[in-house]
Amino acid sequence: MAGVTVAERGEFNLIAAVVAGLPSADSVLLGPGDDGAVLRPDGDLVISIDTMVEGVHFRKDWSSASDVGRKAVASSIADIEAMGAVPSALVISLALPGDLEVAWVTEFSAGVREECRLAGAVLVGGDTTSASDITVTCSVLGNLGGRAAVTRTGARPGDVLAICGRLGWAAAGLAVLKRGFRSPRAVVVAHRVPEPPYGAGLVAAEAGATSMIDVSDGLLADVGHLARGSGMTFDINSALLDIAEPQRVVAAAIGGGDPLVFALTGGDDHALAATFPPESVPEGWTVIGTVAAGEPGVLVDGQPWEGEAGWHHF
Amino acid sequence: MAGVTVAERGEFNLIAAVVAGLPSADSVLLGPGDDGAVLRPDGDLVISIDTMVEGVHFRKDWSSASDVGRKAVASSIADIEAMGAVPSALVISLALPGDLEVAWVTEFSAGVREECRLAGAVLVGGDTTSASDITVTCSVLGNLGGRAAVTRTGARPGDVLAICGRLGWAAAGLAVLKRGFRSPRAVVVAHRVPEPPYGAGLVAAEAGATSMIDVSDGLLADVGHLARGSGMTFDINSALLDIAEPQRVVAAAIGGGDPLVFALTGGDDHALAATFPPESVPEGWTVIGTVAAGEPGVLVDGQPWEGEAGWHHF
Repeated sequence: MAGVTVAERGEFNLIAAVVAGLPSADSVLLGPGDDGAVLRPDGDLVISIDTMVEGVHFRKDWSSASDVGRKAVASSIADIEAMGAVPSALVISLALPGDLEVAWVTEFSAGVREECRLAGAVLVGGDTTSASDITVTCSVLGNLGGRAAVTRTGARPGDVLAICGRLGWAAAGLAVLKRGFRSPRAVVVAHRVPEPPYGAGLVAAEAGATSMIDVSDGLLADVGHLARGSGMTFDINSALLDIAEPQRVVAAAIGGGDPLVFALTGGDDHALAATFPPESVPEGWTVIGTVAAGEPGVLVDGQPWEGEAGWHHF
Repeated sequence: MAGVTVAERGEFNLIAAVVAGLPSADSVLLGPGDDGAVLRPDGDLVISIDTMVEGVHFRKDWSSASDVGRKAVASSIADIEAMGAVPSALVISLALPGDLEVAWVTEFSAGVREECRLAGAVLVGGDTTSASDITVTCSVLGNLGGRAAVTRTGARPGDVLAICGRLGWAAAGLAVLKRGFRSPRAVVVAHRVPEPPYGAGLVAAEAGATSMIDVSDGLLADVGHLARGSGMTFDINSALLDIAEPQRVVAAAIGGGDPLVFALTGGDDHALAATFPPESVPEGWTVIGTVAAGEPGVLVDGQPWEGEAGWHHF
């Protein structure tokens, strides 16, 4: 199989390779292979869609095909977690250059399956087409059971802001890769494959989270959505942010930078950020700030943050 | 606004432009603007995903931005119709070159809305990112009410094969455009914007369709999926295929070609093809063939078709 290209293999055989022998679930009434998959919902449902493009979100020389598959699934499912839903099923569209080796697609599929397994979701369908750059789009569904979704608009004065998951690891890894290095390995790996805290969205919803978002563009940028959505002033206490050793190493190596910048502005780790009444913060979540009535926006240690807030496309 | 590019506008403002003032529906509990949309399902649900890429599925000099938006929505929703479901909601991911004019995106969005209105579906969310070629991915949901989905596997001996919608129009239009012409206008317009028979999938399901598919790759190719899925021999009676005047004109103009080729092998019109017990064919559907036990495959007038069966990517 080595060296066989996507064009030589053809669309239908390629889809077959991606979906062959997929695990299923009781809620999946019909999996891949028809015009659509058929699912049995559990309560109201959440849907999201996300695209990753080669050269924009990943590079083939920095990430393996498996890494790309895992990252596409993880970043998409984080949106479902952030609504307090239980991820159930996803569909993937793959746009691929004709000269790409089929082995890349096979390895990508293995990564997709592995991440689906970790998240408890089932791949139920897909589409492949040709394109000049590898483009991966995941649309994910989640079940809300009998619960209401946790939106960005419900934070109230007196709530606390808490996070679950890592901040600034992927950004530190990207900074390293951009300078041509491959270590510290922990942050490079974090850039390649995020580790959203699967299940934490449901825990937060059941604990009474008043608002929630996943940190995809950076803590300040995403908490900013909660602040403006809820019409509240959020204040992050930087002393409560856990700055890991590899981030300190990277910040020190790259021009004496402040490692706090990674935690405040680095995206792509897909931690969850949520607000709770102070007595309701569930296990596994760390309080990092407060919510008060006032001008909608985010302060750091009581002051406006001076600097770049997060990732911008284009 | 003329001349402003996607890069100048920025991602968040671009999303806002796409989703501003969207219509909603009772089943949409939360529309665009959060990590995911929240929907109330009606029975089991169908999900599909489809991607269109500039230079592969459309050209900006052949199709307006509105045409591209309409085609992306129409071709995606046809998959939901083909399962016998009622299209309800869709999410769209747009990957765009930074130097694309915002006006293109605005016009694209207008086309998306228009086609959603025709199909009775609601745009509930989206994602934008940068890419070298315009890449549009739609994921669509449909409701099955209390019904079961109509798959590709249920055709039985003695059933008839019927279609609803147009065959070979878009292919004739593409043939014209490829030679540098813009007429006959009817087929060129059909290439730009397909006209799936919205509602016909539900009608077929309620009438007792035993198998169904949408004709996206060509009649022979797609009926072939029904034949192999059901393990039956399908026989198309070519005299029952409606060959429209513009198709005859194009076939005659392009090297004395047989207009039947467009109807048998042309994709992208998104007609529905379904099998029914002979007494159950609903109004609006045209019988074009028969189903019998035998080697799984498709015959034309009792003979194997010699020639290209349909569209291949890559």
